Amino acid sequence: MIYVIGIGPGKLDHMTKEAIDCLRNSQVIIGYKTYINLIKDLIKDKEIIENGMRQEIDRCNMALEISSKGKSVALISGGDSGVYGMAGLIYELNSKRDKKERIKVVQGVTSCISAASSLGAPLMNDFCQISLSDLMTPWKQIEKRLELASQADFVICLYNPKSKGRPEHLSYAFKIMEKYKNSNTPVGIVKNAGRDNEEVYVMDFGRMNFDLCDMATMVIIGNKETYIDNGKIITPRGYKI
Amino acid sequence: MIYVIGIGPGKLDHMTKEAIDCLRNSQVIIGYKTYINLIKDLIKDKEIIENGMRQEIDRCNMALEISSKGKSVALISGGDSGVYGMAGLIYELNSKRDKKERIKVVQGVTSCISAASSLGAPLMNDFCQISLSDLMTPWKQIEKRLELASQADFVICLYNPKSKGRPEHLSYAFKIMEKYKNSNTPVGIVKNAGRDNEEVYVMDFGRMNFDLCDMATMVIIGNKETYIDNGKIITPRGYKI
Repeated sequence: MIYVIGIGPGKLDHMTKEAIDCLRNSQVIIGYKTYINLIKDLIKDKEIIENGMRQEIDRCNMALEISSKGKSVALISGGDSGVYGMAGLIYELNSKRDKKERIKVVQGVTSCISAASSLGAPLMNDFCQISLSDLMTPWKQIEKRLELASQADFVICLYNPKSKGRPEHLSYAFKIMEKYKNSNTPVGIVKNAGRDNEEVYVMDFGRMNFDLCDMATMVIIGNKETYIDNGKIITPRGYKI
Repeated sequence: MIYVIGIGPGKLDHMTKEAIDCLRNSQVIIGYKTYINLIKDLIKDKEIIENGMRQEIDRCNMALEISSKGKSVALISGGDSGVYGMAGLIYELNSKRDKKERIKVVQGVTSCISAASSLGAPLMNDFCQISLSDLMTPWKQIEKRLELASQADFVICLYNPKSKGRPEHLSYAFKIMEKYKNSNTPVGIVKNAGRDNEEVYVMDFGRMNFDLCDMATMVIIGNKETYIDNGKIITPRGYKI
């Protein structure tokens, strides 16, 4: 049995009771070392397998092997395991096996929800999530999504906005969006959303500060109705008040 | 003090610890009666104010009044309060007051995350959320978003797909999406996601069954890579396996 557990943004406070229970019911915990570290108080008595970035396939294969020997395994994702997390990969690998393992996706709070709660209420109308990482999606496809999402006036959440290998993706993305997003459109930047070292910044699209962003940052760009009041970003739902 | 609390899809298991703690720390609980009923075991000793649909403005004004008298108030939303929930409205109304109340948005698991966990892993790549309710968004705007989101090959989550007042919106939406979504694109339907009476259906876009859907249903339409395996919907993240 494999539980694919989204641990939420990082604090135990933001995990669901189900996620905590499934961790407790698992014999082996497998995860990226940063996430394992965030939940270490909950898994002191467990067998722990941790490794580094880009070793997702190894982690999933280990989970499948250990589960096939009859042990219960928790496979850890940050945020929600179904949003750019481990749920897809474990299902993909399981689908290629002769003997399938049982998989349960344990829902969690994804990063944009967490970031939004610190910014105010930016996601009150239709929105989309776009990852700016082109490791696994062609950059042309990402550009197309940025263009059409801006044209549709979605609120846009950018995951993985920047890394050492692609420092310019975020500014390229803003170049595309500025055809449709006015310079006074509110932008929220949340670094380490939901963690003790969280940083929150609110600014206009035209004054975007790319230097504030890194890989652990969520960037949320408003729609045409979004405004800033008292430091909070508010996207109206449409009530007549 | 007003806590705007997302209680998740409906079971206590899917609430965050923070949401439970904030409920316990509140003197007055205000919410739509269906949501109040879902958390009744947690709020037995509290002052409870509940009312019906479309009374959101009344609920927010009551929360602001009660908070202004020094009491702590929990304002309840289903799912996450920041996604089509009460967070935006309470901020909007607070911004018009001379004396502002303190507001804290307490993050929760939104419905599409919950529905996705039951379907498999449909949200593993870029996706968007579109509400088909035109009570507060013009239908033309909704049509434009459906068109552009399909063209961009987003996975699409449809909130509020159907109600008595607008029984045909969902089939209109499919008419728009079919220009870009192939007839074999996987579609997941989850009614009452995350609750005891949850119903889960998986089918192809071309065989969509509109009769299965009501207002409490989430509909998720895959992208060009999404496939069905062993009854689960999987959108590949892009790993080479």
